[in-house]
Amino acid sequence: MIGVFDSGFGGLTVLSALLRELPDYDYLYLADSARAPYGARSAEVVNEFTLEAVEWLFEQGCPLVVLACNTASARALRNIQQLHLPKRWPDRRVLGVVRPSVEALAGIPVGTVAIPDQTAPAETSGLVAVLGTQATIASDSYGIELRKLAPRLRLLQQACPLWVPLVEAGELDGPGTEFFLRKALAPLLPPHEAPRRVLLGCTHYPLLLPALRRIVPAETEILDQGGLVAERLADWMRRHPEQEAKLTRGGTRRFCTTDDPAWFAARGEKLLGSPIRAERVRLRTA
Amino acid sequence: MIGVFDSGFGGLTVLSALLRELPDYDYLYLADSARAPYGARSAEVVNEFTLEAVEWLFEQGCPLVVLACNTASARALRNIQQLHLPKRWPDRRVLGVVRPSVEALAGIPVGTVAIPDQTAPAETSGLVAVLGTQATIASDSYGIELRKLAPRLRLLQQACPLWVPLVEAGELDGPGTEFFLRKALAPLLPPHEAPRRVLLGCTHYPLLLPALRRIVPAETEILDQGGLVAERLADWMRRHPEQEAKLTRGGTRRFCTTDDPAWFAARGEKLLGSPIRAERVRLRTA
Repeated sequence: MIGVFDSGFGGLTVLSALLRELPDYDYLYLADSARAPYGARSAEVVNEFTLEAVEWLFEQGCPLVVLACNTASARALRNIQQLHLPKRWPDRRVLGVVRPSVEALAGIPVGTVAIPDQTAPAETSGLVAVLGTQATIASDSYGIELRKLAPRLRLLQQACPLWVPLVEAGELDGPGTEFFLRKALAPLLPPHEAPRRVLLGCTHYPLLLPALRRIVPAETEILDQGGLVAERLADWMRRHPEQEAKLTRGGTRRFCTTDDPAWFAARGEKLLGSPIRAERVRLRTA
Repeated sequence: MIGVFDSGFGGLTVLSALLRELPDYDYLYLADSARAPYGARSAEVVNEFTLEAVEWLFEQGCPLVVLACNTASARALRNIQQLHLPKRWPDRRVLGVVRPSVEALAGIPVGTVAIPDQTAPAETSGLVAVLGTQATIASDSYGIELRKLAPRLRLLQQACPLWVPLVEAGELDGPGTEFFLRKALAPLLPPHEAPRRVLLGCTHYPLLLPALRRIVPAETEILDQGGLVAERLADWMRRHPEQEAKLTRGGTRRFCTTDDPAWFAARGEKLLGSPIRAERVRLRTA
């Protein structure tokens, strides 16, 4: 069973891509809707909440957990991988969305093992951009990874404080939404240099894509994070057969949330395009 | 010591009014910033989180707790007063902001004990309005109370989904903010009837007051919830000397939050107009 965690329902955009790319596995999706969104919380709190979620997914029997949440990936993954797993769960794996996204931003082809601090087949010039929550951008996780993989690429990191609430409120387009999209996007728009690629570094942002595509310069490629994460996870599995072998292949999907399951199911069905049943669960506080 | 609880820092607008009206008492302010905002959460979750906060304030020694949060007052107060206090804390009191706000909306003078289901000195005709979070409006708490106290007044209840995120993002005015203020206010604006009074039924909304005053019809009075809650709490104390006698009068103020205390203090100082020191605390999950 593959555990997929997000602070809310937005991570279903990542799950949806995983189901297309790797449909045979069993999946357990967990949304911490009762405490979402994470994007403005401190590093300490994001760490605690994410650890509780990962612990719960491990207890449900997931050998592999994907942090679909950019804020959790940016703020908590390093700590979990370096301190928590070796001590408590040496046989489990937790992967995030930052590393595969940076590989895609840097133009590194899928299937190329990029070794940090060695010459990777990354592009060596130009400007790329990442859009994220305040917490993701403040963590500089995208900057840290990109400097390892493609030290000569320039990276523009832009926080987009209101975008998650706009999506949560169903305000996907219109004059008010466009105002706040343009405000955050200003450093990417004329007279500034248009980036070669821009990553939507938050699971909610793909829902703003029609409006964004109208505003972002035509020559800028907008990266689909769900798709690239799924593609690179499939590649990771091919390179880690001993981890892949632990994953059951029953094709089941289970959906859990820490708030109202009916509310979650209603939102989730729209994103996944198929009916779902959700359960409410409680996470243990540390 | 008087406990004052809000999901975030917005409740400091209520505390600020309490400090002006009743400065001699000791105060303990608790913000559940790690799980804020509550406005879109289910009744069940708001109940659980609020109960944890009240329990914590009781354990710190508060005989009286004021729920400055409209969502908590609307969703959790009745349950706490009717089920939780009699069973576990018969000598403690928890008061909310809905009842005093409805008294003010209905034009009931301070110092008039309004007895539910009896003829209260309320106005008997006209339209009043309350603006709140989705959870507050969905609870119909304002409607339920107003029908008891002033059954012949008409009440317009309007949810304002994006207003809290706008305030949290510091977007207090400007074209984008104005768009979403006007969108929620549409039922109060021409060609509709202008309400006699409108209550800002969320602790965040007073920060939008300059922009709101420009948009709301000139003949509509905008009620200051902090001020009216403080005034009516002072009156409640005069009518409940046995409760008032339990409150210590050392003039101390203590500020606690479940997320980063430095972030909270920075926001809080702006709202209170004086330097504060905050501590991080953890609430026990039920």
